[in-house]
Amino acid sequence: MKAEIIAVGTELLSPDRIDANSLYLTGELNRVGWEVRRKTVVGDDLEDIADAIRAAISRSELVILSGGLGPTEDDRTRAATALALGRKTARNMEILEDLRRRFAVRGFKMNKNNEKQADVIDGAEAFDNPFGTAPGQWIENNGRYIALLPGPPRELKRIFEASVLPKLRAISGSRRLVSKLFHVTEVPESELDARIEPLCAGYADIEVTVLAGTGHSSVRLSRWFDDGENVAMIEELGEKIQAELGDAVFSTSGETMEEVVGRLLQKSGRTLAIAESCTSGILGMLITRISGSSDYFRGGVLCYGNDAKMKLCGVLPKTLAEHGAVSAETTEALALGVRSAFSSDIGISITGIAGPGGGSAEKPVGLVYIGVSDGVRTENRRRVIPGDRESVRERSAYLALSTLRGFL
Amino acid sequence: MKAEIIAVGTELLSPDRIDANSLYLTGELNRVGWEVRRKTVVGDDLEDIADAIRAAISRSELVILSGGLGPTEDDRTRAATALALGRKTARNMEILEDLRRRFAVRGFKMNKNNEKQADVIDGAEAFDNPFGTAPGQWIENNGRYIALLPGPPRELKRIFEASVLPKLRAISGSRRLVSKLFHVTEVPESELDARIEPLCAGYADIEVTVLAGTGHSSVRLSRWFDDGENVAMIEELGEKIQAELGDAVFSTSGETMEEVVGRLLQKSGRTLAIAESCTSGILGMLITRISGSSDYFRGGVLCYGNDAKMKLCGVLPKTLAEHGAVSAETTEALALGVRSAFSSDIGISITGIAGPGGGSAEKPVGLVYIGVSDGVRTENRRRVIPGDRESVRERSAYLALSTLRGFL
Repeated sequence: MKAEIIAVGTELLSPDRIDANSLYLTGELNRVGWEVRRKTVVGDDLEDIADAIRAAISRSELVILSGGLGPTEDDRTRAATALALGRKTARNMEILEDLRRRFAVRGFKMNKNNEKQADVIDGAEAFDNPFGTAPGQWIENNGRYIALLPGPPRELKRIFEASVLPKLRAISGSRRLVSKLFHVTEVPESELDARIEPLCAGYADIEVTVLAGTGHSSVRLSRWFDDGENVAMIEELGEKIQAELGDAVFSTSGETMEEVVGRLLQKSGRTLAIAESCTSGILGMLITRISGSSDYFRGGVLCYGNDAKMKLCGVLPKTLAEHGAVSAETTEALALGVRSAFSSDIGISITGIAGPGGGSAEKPVGLVYIGVSDGVRTENRRRVIPGDRESVRERSAYLALSTLRGFL
Repeated sequence: MKAEIIAVGTELLSPDRIDANSLYLTGELNRVGWEVRRKTVVGDDLEDIADAIRAAISRSELVILSGGLGPTEDDRTRAATALALGRKTARNMEILEDLRRRFAVRGFKMNKNNEKQADVIDGAEAFDNPFGTAPGQWIENNGRYIALLPGPPRELKRIFEASVLPKLRAISGSRRLVSKLFHVTEVPESELDARIEPLCAGYADIEVTVLAGTGHSSVRLSRWFDDGENVAMIEELGEKIQAELGDAVFSTSGETMEEVVGRLLQKSGRTLAIAESCTSGILGMLITRISGSSDYFRGGVLCYGNDAKMKLCGVLPKTLAEHGAVSAETTEALALGVRSAFSSDIGISITGIAGPGGGSAEKPVGLVYIGVSDGVRTENRRRVIPGDRESVRERSAYLALSTLRGFL
């Protein structure tokens, strides 16, 4: 079945903003048997939006619109959809009351602008939006379907998952995209490509994509299967790839590195403390993204200055003076020290030169050390990471997670 | 003048690939007086591409297509354009010879597939592609313009810059987009809209967009100006908006909140230490994004557990027992304690309940306290932030930065 995605918003026609919601939507649509045939971005213009809807609904069974459901003058998706379908809208009193209540809870008085978010297109089903004020809407029109979703990604994802997906699954039946995903750590994209290509001979029907992400690469295999078709071929190729890459594959379920590490810590019953210098918070942020990380994460020190390295993490002035802040010795001392400071089972540390300044011939920008210790075994790794400041910082934090995974 | 961008390629309708060429094209188009009215992504289907071209050329003066010019079966942009315009194509012998020569230089024999890259639409001008094999094409059609560009970014940019831009500049004259941007903190989007709307009466020509971001909102004013037109009106409206919003405007230059706070700390010569509980790293990450932040950032403690709050930040067991970890008292004690631990001028702290678990009637998910102290003055703020775990954490970190800005 064919779907189209229309992203609404003048800001998405500027040089600064891209419609990324469509990537999420496409992945989910594919999973339940819907292929995306076209994507359109239009500005906040009533006629332009209505025109895009009319054209899409004439071609495809499903049209998903994102954005333009908010309270402002510029939010015209509801009105444009009504116009395109020749329907009216009516203010829904229940939704209106709910909006007022939400503002009251946060201590604000709701102003009049917000009321139009309670407008529902005649015949539409409204979808609750627990993370925002604008409800989603679902309309059936001559055997075709239109979904209106808010633009903010969290709101869009939540409504799509809870309310739209079940409907789509019911409509599309059993044709589906079968895919396998491998998250791979510490193998550069070009090497990954070279190692996988020879395995794919004889599987011309399977689409193989290698993607470079921050801190890891991914390999995705996918193919559309009709009802009754044998999906074994995709498993077969998957096994060959797994055998070739071995331990470098850290997840085949979409699990992130921080989830994998969290699971390993949880399982082994061990606790963690961290000392971050150049990354100053990125590793902590990744670890505590996981709800329940308080079971194993004791805390950490952002030891940006040398004072903090000595005073809070017990690095000796002598170590800093002899080897410098960015060195194997200091990084190991930090891992040991932060472990003691937080009385955790494991300590992990990052020091490095994120740039753009601070590099030298001996210690270039991008030089990073990771230290890890469980009190008995203390190790360090040295890497030179290419890229700009943000990229060096992010990759360093992921390298620390990958190191921790190996250590566990 | 209005332009549309059509990206061609079935891979751009997958969950993994996005059309990023359009961001580059939009920036360049805006600079020479062309506004982007719509963006479309279509797959490698002859009829779909032709249909998109017909619709675009009926609406807009300029249509730029990217992709689908290569040698494979799937490359159908040339044929689709000819179909949409009712023109023929002819193989250009000069281009064909040039293609053969290029293959020969690299030691390859050109296979037959590649020949179709020498097909030029009747009446089109071909543009040399020094970085690839597929030439660009430029077609005038009843006073409107179509440009065909290859998909690989390096090839597209080179041809656009060398061959398309001069033509567009000549067509559009000296028309250009003038804009003003306001970054605003702690004013909800709907309130912002309500306060700005009355000011815009009498400036109907100026486009006013309110954007909600993470941790701040933005207002963008923009208008196209023709040669000789007075741009004072946009300055005038800008001044009214600045007067209305006052201190809530933290930047008019695109500076981020972390840059503004960094500049204020730098200017006042004061140093900072932070204690993060529920955000555990996000505030530190934001602050140290700024190269040079080591001048004022001493470091911080990720005091995720209560042990760390007591042991590293000097919070008294009594304070935690009587008021709990998420309380005004504990948060102020953390700000004071982390200031002492790092010997900094200012300490700032965040505690809160990020969820999804851990909330109660008295202390709901989303409850956040920010503490700040310079040793003389110690303050706290309480907020209930809506949204999921990630959203509560991010907004808490930005609220801390905004609080620090006020404090400074």
